[in-house]
Amino acid sequence: MAVPATHPVDGSVGVVETKVCDLTSPLALDCGATLAPVQIAYETYGRLSAERDNVILVCHALSGDAHAAGIAATDTVGSTRDGFRADERDASDARKLGWWDGMIGPGKAFDTEQFFIVSTNLIGGCRGSTGPSSENPATRRPYGSDFPVVTVTDMVRAQRAFLDALGIERLAAVAGGSLGGMQALDWAVQYPDDVDAIVVIASTPALRPQGVAWNAIARNAIISDPDWQDGHYYGTGRAPVRGMGIARMLGHMTYLSAEALEQKFGRRLQFADDIRYVLDEPEFEIENYLRHQARNFVERFDANTYLYLSRALSYFDLARQNGDGQLLEAVQPIAARTLLISFSSDWLYPPEDSKLLEDALSIAGKTVESHVIDAPYGHDCFLLEEARQTPIIRQFLRET
Amino acid sequence: MAVPATHPVDGSVGVVETKVCDLTSPLALDCGATLAPVQIAYETYGRLSAERDNVILVCHALSGDAHAAGIAATDTVGSTRDGFRADERDASDARKLGWWDGMIGPGKAFDTEQFFIVSTNLIGGCRGSTGPSSENPATRRPYGSDFPVVTVTDMVRAQRAFLDALGIERLAAVAGGSLGGMQALDWAVQYPDDVDAIVVIASTPALRPQGVAWNAIARNAIISDPDWQDGHYYGTGRAPVRGMGIARMLGHMTYLSAEALEQKFGRRLQFADDIRYVLDEPEFEIENYLRHQARNFVERFDANTYLYLSRALSYFDLARQNGDGQLLEAVQPIAARTLLISFSSDWLYPPEDSKLLEDALSIAGKTVESHVIDAPYGHDCFLLEEARQTPIIRQFLRET
Repeated sequence: MAVPATHPVDGSVGVVETKVCDLTSPLALDCGATLAPVQIAYETYGRLSAERDNVILVCHALSGDAHAAGIAATDTVGSTRDGFRADERDASDARKLGWWDGMIGPGKAFDTEQFFIVSTNLIGGCRGSTGPSSENPATRRPYGSDFPVVTVTDMVRAQRAFLDALGIERLAAVAGGSLGGMQALDWAVQYPDDVDAIVVIASTPALRPQGVAWNAIARNAIISDPDWQDGHYYGTGRAPVRGMGIARMLGHMTYLSAEALEQKFGRRLQFADDIRYVLDEPEFEIENYLRHQARNFVERFDANTYLYLSRALSYFDLARQNGDGQLLEAVQPIAARTLLISFSSDWLYPPEDSKLLEDALSIAGKTVESHVIDAPYGHDCFLLEEARQTPIIRQFLRET
Repeated sequence: MAVPATHPVDGSVGVVETKVCDLTSPLALDCGATLAPVQIAYETYGRLSAERDNVILVCHALSGDAHAAGIAATDTVGSTRDGFRADERDASDARKLGWWDGMIGPGKAFDTEQFFIVSTNLIGGCRGSTGPSSENPATRRPYGSDFPVVTVTDMVRAQRAFLDALGIERLAAVAGGSLGGMQALDWAVQYPDDVDAIVVIASTPALRPQGVAWNAIARNAIISDPDWQDGHYYGTGRAPVRGMGIARMLGHMTYLSAEALEQKFGRRLQFADDIRYVLDEPEFEIENYLRHQARNFVERFDANTYLYLSRALSYFDLARQNGDGQLLEAVQPIAARTLLISFSSDWLYPPEDSKLLEDALSIAGKTVESHVIDAPYGHDCFLLEEARQTPIIRQFLRET
């Protein structure tokens, strides 16, 4: 089948370079601190229209980065593609693919033939944007845990300042899954005049206590690792890789469903036909898989960033922040059309949470469309169920 | 209301002393090793009938001990009462209560007016029975991780030897929840002629991969704590309390349901009316609760015992061990009447697992009765939902 010249490879946006933008003004944060200087790492896909009216901002989740689509021009630490698909990263080409490559490109859900897609690394991040591993101008050393605590609202504020720097005023859409979906919601509330539509996938107006707890345990695993050194481990030759490994294993489990684990692993043993009576070695395939996940993750991700982004995730509470505890009140400013997608097997960001949002938006007279996709892969569905999300998102964006 | 003289206090078995029994023969283990000497810590409640036909063996779960009922005569490290009820242990009286005190006593589910209840600490344990903190006769130092890997079958074999030492041949019933339920099942298969009935609560013929994974992560948290010192931390002044804390938090979360957490904690903050923008301190009530749980647990429980019992739990597989992978085959030897109880919100040992057992037993022509109790507290229900388990168990035992 002949591929049109505008489609580099199989719907891919091709080779992409991550760029960096220095914000010209300090960034005021919710906590009262001011962050300066602020650098934002970003990528763009597609072409900005002359009217600058075709911009979609894509927001990453806890362990993502600016490299959302295409093939990375340089491959330093590997892709942030997550979930079951993380297996693929052992193949060198897959290592370079963006975390939402299946969703962004010519003919894909976020169609680069029509839209100019912008993706940034969050502040607090570790992949090019200012975060705990950046130099603290006050000390000339990395911030470590002196980096100020940032919120989803701060992240969105930084994205707004970044887009100003790029000369982009309005967004045709803001889209993201999980923590990315929280950013989309926050955009619609903070900057109602700037956003035409939001695509909120596998997300929530506020994490439930179970999710808060998992995040807290993961953070505790990191900070109780003696190599965390109160957050000042940069340059010491030691980093809390053991704690991060535990955090990763734990987080990964919460992204998967019991059913998916049953299908993929069952109780199959890894190394022998029968149990080997070993105490501290993996024995079942699932045990070995988790260790593998942990090893890969600690290579590519900074522990302090994990702490900061996890904290922001737990803090996020649309109703508390904007409606004095009332979700109906909080959504009042929203002018954007809203698309909600959730997944039947996602127990961390359950469909009920999207339903809460849908109901509040409906009662408030807003335009909202909601879909629950019946799929077995848990929270990771937002990264895996590309085929079924695509027609929903394309149809929704067509109306933009 | 007048209390009959035979009821010490409010249905309690009264003050109880944990006793110790030295097995006279070495114990052959599944792994090929032989354990000697073997000491079993135990408690008994009620009176042994002249015919010795009223004995019920009660089996504890991952973090339990021999002190199942009544008030401990000595209070060294506190009760092993678990779950939400663990809060109560701060009160000094509650600290001394057995982990299944609500189920064992005059007029209770396991009625000490009728039955002679025996409860032992498992081998591998840390509360009086031979385990990794016991002296290794070969080195005259604590075994540590040189303790042999034990299985549920080994635990049951030790209980059989212990009952022999006590002069008890037959059991009217074996009962337990979770890992305790696995022991009851194993008894019925290993010693079909010795057991009249089994009561298997919130248990499974084999942990599902999700449960295997949670256990593996908890073990990893312990062994990756540098203070674990390859399992030889006794006498060093350091113990893997941080890793144990993480393991405990994680385990505790898997015992609770999302609904229970929602009801008990919601997103309430612990220390202030608004978020404080802190990175490494608890902020939500649930976060603080988990730290509290971790602190209490590490005081009373040995990390190596956690590793060994968790490993046994993951290994247990009735079908693999006894039926070449076929559950129907594995249950063939069972002669005991079987009572299965599970809980609607238990996602770690889901009702479906009890259903698998029920179906296999039914097809094999065995006598089986199964109940799913609709309750919100997750796996912890087996420790909390005493009132609703009581009539079911009493009725079942009445037929013995």
